[in-house]
Amino acid sequence: MDRKYRVGILGATGTVGQRFIQLLENHPQFELTALAASDRSQGKAYQEACAWRLPGEVPESVRSLPVEPPAPPLDCEIVFSSLPGEIARETEESFARAGYAVISNSSALRMDEDVPLLIPEVNHEHLALLDSQKSARGFGRGVVVTNPNCSTIMLALALAPLHARFQVEAVVATTLQALSGAGYPGVASLDITDNVLPFIGGEEEKIESETLKILGRFDGGRVEPAPFKVSAQCHRVAVSDGHMAAVRVKLAREAGPEEVREAFASFTSLPQELKLHTAPARPVVVRDERDRPQPRLDRDAGGGMSVTVGRIRRDSVLDYRFVALSHNTVRGAAGAAILNAELLAATGRI
Amino acid sequence: MDRKYRVGILGATGTVGQRFIQLLENHPQFELTALAASDRSQGKAYQEACAWRLPGEVPESVRSLPVEPPAPPLDCEIVFSSLPGEIARETEESFARAGYAVISNSSALRMDEDVPLLIPEVNHEHLALLDSQKSARGFGRGVVVTNPNCSTIMLALALAPLHARFQVEAVVATTLQALSGAGYPGVASLDITDNVLPFIGGEEEKIESETLKILGRFDGGRVEPAPFKVSAQCHRVAVSDGHMAAVRVKLAREAGPEEVREAFASFTSLPQELKLHTAPARPVVVRDERDRPQPRLDRDAGGGMSVTVGRIRRDSVLDYRFVALSHNTVRGAAGAAILNAELLAATGRI
Amino acid sequence: MDRKYRVGILGATGTVGQRFIQLLENHPQFELTALAASDRSQGKAYQEACAWRLPGEVPESVRSLPVEPPAPPLDCEIVFSSLPGEIARETEESFARAGYAVISNSSALRMDEDVPLLIPEVNHEHLALLDSQKSARGFGRGVVVTNPNCSTIMLALALAPLHARFQVEAVVATTLQALSGAGYPGVASLDITDNVLPFIGGEEEKIESETLKILGRFDGGRVEPAPFKVSAQCHRVAVSDGHMAAVRVKLAREAGPEEVREAFASFTSLPQELKLHTAPARPVVVRDERDRPQPRLDRDAGGGMSVTVGRIRRDSVLDYRFVALSHNTVRGAAGAAILNAELLAATGRI
Amino acid sequence: MDRKYRVGILGATGTVGQRFIQLLENHPQFELTALAASDRSQGKAYQEACAWRLPGEVPESVRSLPVEPPAPPLDCEIVFSSLPGEIARETEESFARAGYAVISNSSALRMDEDVPLLIPEVNHEHLALLDSQKSARGFGRGVVVTNPNCSTIMLALALAPLHARFQVEAVVATTLQALSGAGYPGVASLDITDNVLPFIGGEEEKIESETLKILGRFDGGRVEPAPFKVSAQCHRVAVSDGHMAAVRVKLAREAGPEEVREAFASFTSLPQELKLHTAPARPVVVRDERDRPQPRLDRDAGGGMSVTVGRIRRDSVLDYRFVALSHNTVRGAAGAAILNAELLAATGRI
Repeated sequence: MDRKYRVGILGATGTVGQRFIQLLENHPQFELTALAASDRSQGKAYQEACAWRLPGEVPESVRSLPVEPPAPPLDCEIVFSSLPGEIARETEESFARAGYAVISNSSALRMDEDVPLLIPEVNHEHLALLDSQKSARGFGRGVVVTNPNCSTIMLALALAPLHARFQVEAVVATTLQALSGAGYPGVASLDITDNVLPFIGGEEEKIESETLKILGRFDGGRVEPAPFKVSAQCHRVAVSDGHMAAVRVKLAREAGPEEVREAFASFTSLPQELKLHTAPARPVVVRDERDRPQPRLDRDAGGGMSVTVGRIRRDSVLDYRFVALSHNTVRGAAGAAILNAELLAATGRI
Repeated sequence: MDRKYRVGILGATGTVGQRFIQLLENHPQFELTALAASDRSQGKAYQEACAWRLPGEVPESVRSLPVEPPAPPLDCEIVFSSLPGEIARETEESFARAGYAVISNSSALRMDEDVPLLIPEVNHEHLALLDSQKSARGFGRGVVVTNPNCSTIMLALALAPLHARFQVEAVVATTLQALSGAGYPGVASLDITDNVLPFIGGEEEKIESETLKILGRFDGGRVEPAPFKVSAQCHRVAVSDGHMAAVRVKLAREAGPEEVREAFASFTSLPQELKLHTAPARPVVVRDERDRPQPRLDRDAGGGMSVTVGRIRRDSVLDYRFVALSHNTVRGAAGAAILNAELLAATGRI
Repeated sequence: MDRKYRVGILGATGTVGQRFIQLLENHPQFELTALAASDRSQGKAYQEACAWRLPGEVPESVRSLPVEPPAPPLDCEIVFSSLPGEIARETEESFARAGYAVISNSSALRMDEDVPLLIPEVNHEHLALLDSQKSARGFGRGVVVTNPNCSTIMLALALAPLHARFQVEAVVATTLQALSGAGYPGVASLDITDNVLPFIGGEEEKIESETLKILGRFDGGRVEPAPFKVSAQCHRVAVSDGHMAAVRVKLAREAGPEEVREAFASFTSLPQELKLHTAPARPVVVRDERDRPQPRLDRDAGGGMSVTVGRIRRDSVLDYRFVALSHNTVRGAAGAAILNAELLAATGRI
Repeated sequence: MDRKYRVGILGATGTVGQRFIQLLENHPQFELTALAASDRSQGKAYQEACAWRLPGEVPESVRSLPVEPPAPPLDCEIVFSSLPGEIARETEESFARAGYAVISNSSALRMDEDVPLLIPEVNHEHLALLDSQKSARGFGRGVVVTNPNCSTIMLALALAPLHARFQVEAVVATTLQALSGAGYPGVASLDITDNVLPFIGGEEEKIESETLKILGRFDGGRVEPAPFKVSAQCHRVAVSDGHMAAVRVKLAREAGPEEVREAFASFTSLPQELKLHTAPARPVVVRDERDRPQPRLDRDAGGGMSVTVGRIRRDSVLDYRFVALSHNTVRGAAGAAILNAELLAATGRI
C-alpha cells in the first residue's frame, strides 16, 4: 500500500458512478483524478454535470473535476467502468490497449474466455487468465478484469462456501431486486407503486451463466464452468437498495444444518488475509432471527460488502434453502470493482 | 338458484370480513342477515363497530346490522367464518353441531381428515368427505367445508391443469405476498417501507401440506395426499392486494411449452359448467407479455377470482417455470368461501 | 342525447390518453373512432402501439384502431387532446380551424382570453367566450375549450361553493400530488421511494393563475379574474392516483362551521340538472371522519368525478381549513374533458 | 467535558429509545448505565427484550444491560425519557423528586409554566425557569427539561432566525410527516400503502401551542408566549424518517429574499459556540436546488441535527414561503434531548 494509484471513472454520472465516487472518497490507495461519461454532461464540472442522488454532498475533491469523453487518454492509471452495455466493449478494450488497467462493472466482456469474472473471495485464482489475455489481445501493460452482475455476486458469494465444502449440484434462485439496480431514471414509479415486476431484462440469463464461470475451475489455461445447473427467476420490488434472493441448493455431500451454517459463518478468503481496504471482515454474515435478512436492516452489513444469509432450513425438494441479501450498488457493483482493483494492486497485477 | 339462503359472517369486522360483505352485496343467492365478531365491537351497529378500509362505503343493507358474539344461534343458515385460528375450531364445530353450514376460511380444521379443503375447480369430488364427516362428527344437518390458505389456493389452482395432464412430480414455489394477507393492523409500515420481510408465520408449512391434500385423490373413503414434494419460501412485499408466486415444476410426462400454455388457458371445471355466480369464466388467465402478471394490473382479473399465469419458460433445474398471481382476499379468501358455498348449494349439499 | 358524436383522442398512448379510452368505453353519446399520438407509435394498431398500464384489458373496440399523426383530418367531429405542451397550441388550433371541436386537457391555450377554462359545475357561463373566440380566430364551426390543471380543478371545485356563498378573500393551498399526474414514465421510482419531492414544474404558477380565471366573472365580453390571492406549494408523494390539497381560506362573510359544511355538501350545478352522463350526483362529497379524505379510499368517489372534502375546521390564521382530494386523471384530466364535451353537446355548442 | 455522567433511558425499547441508544454509543460525556421500559420486557437483557429495528447491531455495551421498571432508583444521574404520555408525567416527576435530571421527550410536562421547552439554539435563556421549578416543585437537585414535539422543533428552529431579524407575525405550516414519528408498530402498512393520512392525533394542537412557548420571551420570571398565530395541518406520508413542512410566514419587517436566505444560512447560537458534541455546525442548512429538501437526501444533514430549508420564495398571501425538513427521531426526539442534556452540563445546570 505504499504507492497511490490515480484512478478514473467511466460512466461517472450514473447511479453506479456516483457510488464509485462515494466509496473512493478518502481511499488509502486510490486517488480519483479523472471522470468520464458518455452523455450530455461532457465538458461541465462534475458538480454541474451530475444530478447527485446519494444522501450528503458531492465530495469536495471531485466537484470541479471536468467530465470528459470516455476515451483515452485520461489522467489516470486505472479506470473503473460502469458504461452502458452498447459502448462498453469497444471503450474498455481501447483503454486496455492504451495501457490502462480496466476494472469493469459492465457486462460486455464478462463471459469472454480470457477475462476474469472476479469475486476476490471466491475465485482469485482466475486472475491467472490475465496471462493469456495479455498474449491473446496484445494489451501490453493494460488489463481488463470484470465483476459479475449484481445479483450474481450475491448468489456466487453465498454459494462459494457451500460449493467448497459440500459441492453444489443444483441451484434454484428467486430474486427480489432493488430499484437502484436499474440505474437512473430506471423503473418508472407508476410501474412499481403497489406492485411487483416479474421481469428484469437479461438478468435471469446472466445469473444462470455467470455463476458457473465464477465457481468454475481454472485448469492452468482456462476456466472450466462449474458442472451444475442454475435456475433463476427475477423480480423487481419497491426497495431502493439491497437485492434479495430465496435460494435452494442441492449438495453432493451430506451436511447437517449446523455444518451449513458454519460453512457460511466461518468463510474468509484471500482479501481478508491481505486485509484489503474494502474487504469486509466477514464476507458472509449469518443471521439467526427468523425474519432476517431484510434489505433496510442488512444491506449495509460490512460496509455494504457482506452478503447476509438467513433462514437456513432443510428443503423438501432440493437439500437446503436460505435467503441471501447484499447491497447491489456496493458489493454488487462499485464496491466489487474497487475490491477487484485492490486485489490486483496487492498481487502486483497492476 | 331458486331459493335464497340467509348467511352470516363470523369475523365480520376484519380484513376478510369486510371483503365478504363487499362480495355478498347484491349476491343472487345469499342474503346477509347476521354479523358476528370476537372483538370489542359486539353490540354495536356494524357501521359503528367497523373501521371500513375498502374503497367506497359500507353497503347500505348492513350498516345497521348488529355485531353479535360468534356463537349459535345466529339468524342465518350458512356462516362464513374468518375467525382467528385460536377460536376458530371450537366455534366452527359448535355452529356445525347446531345445524349450520360452516364455510370456513380459517386454518383450524383444514387438515382434518373428514373436512373438505375445497377449490371447486380443482377437487369438487372431495365434497364426498361430507358423508363421513356427518357420521363421524354427528353434525346432523350441519357441515364444515374449508378453503385453503390464500397462497395455496393460487398455487393449487395453477398446478391443477398441469397435474391433470402431465402429472406434477415436484414443486418449488417462492411467494411475494401482499400486506392484506396479514389482516389489520397486520404488518407495521415501518417494517415494510423500503423493505421486504422474508418470513410469514406458518405460511411455508401451510403451502407445503395443504397443496398435497387439495391435489390428492379421493379414493371413495378418504383423500390420499398427492405423492410429490412442495418447497415453499414466503416473502412479504409492499403491495396492498395480490399474492405472487414464482413457481418451478417437475412433470412426469414430457410437455412442450405450447402444451403447457394450452393446459393453463383451456382449463375449466364444474363451477364454469354450473355457471356459479362467483366462478370466473377462465380460472387461469394466461398473459404472454414478458412482464406480466403484476399485482396492480392483474389482481382483479375475473373479478378477482382468476389466477393469472405468465412467463411460462422451460426451467434448467426442474422442467418448467412460471409466475402466478391472484387476489389474496378475493380468490384467496372471501371469494373462495363464497364459491364453495355456491357449489354446495348447486349440488344440493346445503 | 339523440345523436352520437364520433370522437378522436390526441395523445392516445399516454397516461391521460389511456384514461380517455377507458372512460369512453360504452359512453352513450361518444363513439371513439380515431386515435392519434405524436410518438413512434404512429402507424401501428393501438394494441401494439400502447403499453397499457391500467388494470384490465384494452377495450376490444379500440385494439385495432390505427394510431395516426396528430393532424387533421381525423375521422371524427370532436377531438380530446392531451398533447404535451410544446406541440399542443399549434395542433389544437389547426384542428379548430379545420372545424373540429377541440376539448383540450393541455395547458397551452388555457389562459388565452377567448378560451373557456371550464369546470361545468363552476363556470359554465364562461362558454359564452366561444362567441368572441369564433370571431377573433375565424374558427368557423370549430371551437377550443380547455379544462384546468389537475390540481386546480380540485381546488376550484372545492372553492366554488364557498366563493358563491361567502366570497373567498384569500387561499393558501398545499398539495400532495399523485405520480400519475407526471405522466409516463414520469417520476423515477428511485426519486420517490421513501421520499417526497417538494417541486413540480410549473404547478404552483398554474394553480395560482388558473384558479382566478375559473372563479372570475364573465362580464358579457370577457372574464374578469377573481379578485383574491392564491398561494400554492406543491409536493409529489408516493401515491399512484389521487391529488390531495390542504387548504386554508379567508372568507369575506362570516360563516359558522355548519354553514361551511352545508355549502360543500349541498352544492350542485348545471351538469347535475342536465344529468350529464359523466357528472357525479354530488360534485363535492363531505366526509366527517377525522382521517378522511384519503387517496386510496376516496379517489373513486362519484366514479372519480367527485371532490371529497374533510377535516373542515376553523383556522387560526385564515378563517377555515379543510382537506380536499380528487382523482387527478379522472376529474383532473380525462373525465373533466369528457364532461366539458357533454356540456357543449347538451347546450348545442357542438 | 471533564467528567462523565451516568445516564439511563426510560422507554428504552421503543423507536425513540433505540435512537437514544444509537446516538449515545461512544458519547464523550454520557455513559449509558441503565435501561427502563414500561412493557413486558422488564427483567430481560436488552438484547432479548428489544426488537431492534435500526440498521446494524445493538451496540455491544448495552446488549446485556437489564431492562428495569421505570421508577427510581436507577443506576444513573440523568434519565432520558421517551415514555408514553399516560405514564410520563408521574414517572418523570418522581425521578426529578428523587434528584435525577430528567431530560424528557414526552409531551406530558412540556406546557407546564415552570418547565423549559428547550431548543438550545433557540431559547437557551428559558433554562432560567429551572430556578422557579426548583422552588415551586421542591425537586432539590432534580430538574425536568423537555424538548418539543418532533414537528415543532423543525418549525421553531426554522422560524427562529426569521423571528430574530424580521419578527414573525403569522405562520401557516403544512406537514408531511414520517412513519417513525408514530412509534412502533404505529401506522399499519395497509393504511399508508398508495395513500396519505390527513390526520395525526394531537399534532396540529401541539405545533400551534408549543411553537409560541419556544419563541416566547423569558421576562425574568416566566415565559411570555410569542404574540402571533400558527396554523398547522398535518399529514402522514409513506416515508420512514424525516418530517417535512411547507411553511408560509408573515414578517413584521420588510425583507428581501436574499436577506431571508442569509438569515437562515448564517444562523448559529450558543450550542455552536460551546461546541456541544451533538450540535451541528449549521443548525439551518439552506439548499438552493429547486427540488430540495427531500427526506431521503437531507434527513441526515448535520448528523440528523440540522434543519434543511429550501424553496425560499415570496408568497402571494403571506410574505414568504419555504420548505423545511429534519430528522424526526434525531433532531426531533433523541438527538434533541441529548443536546439539551449537553447544554445543561455545559452551563453547570447538572
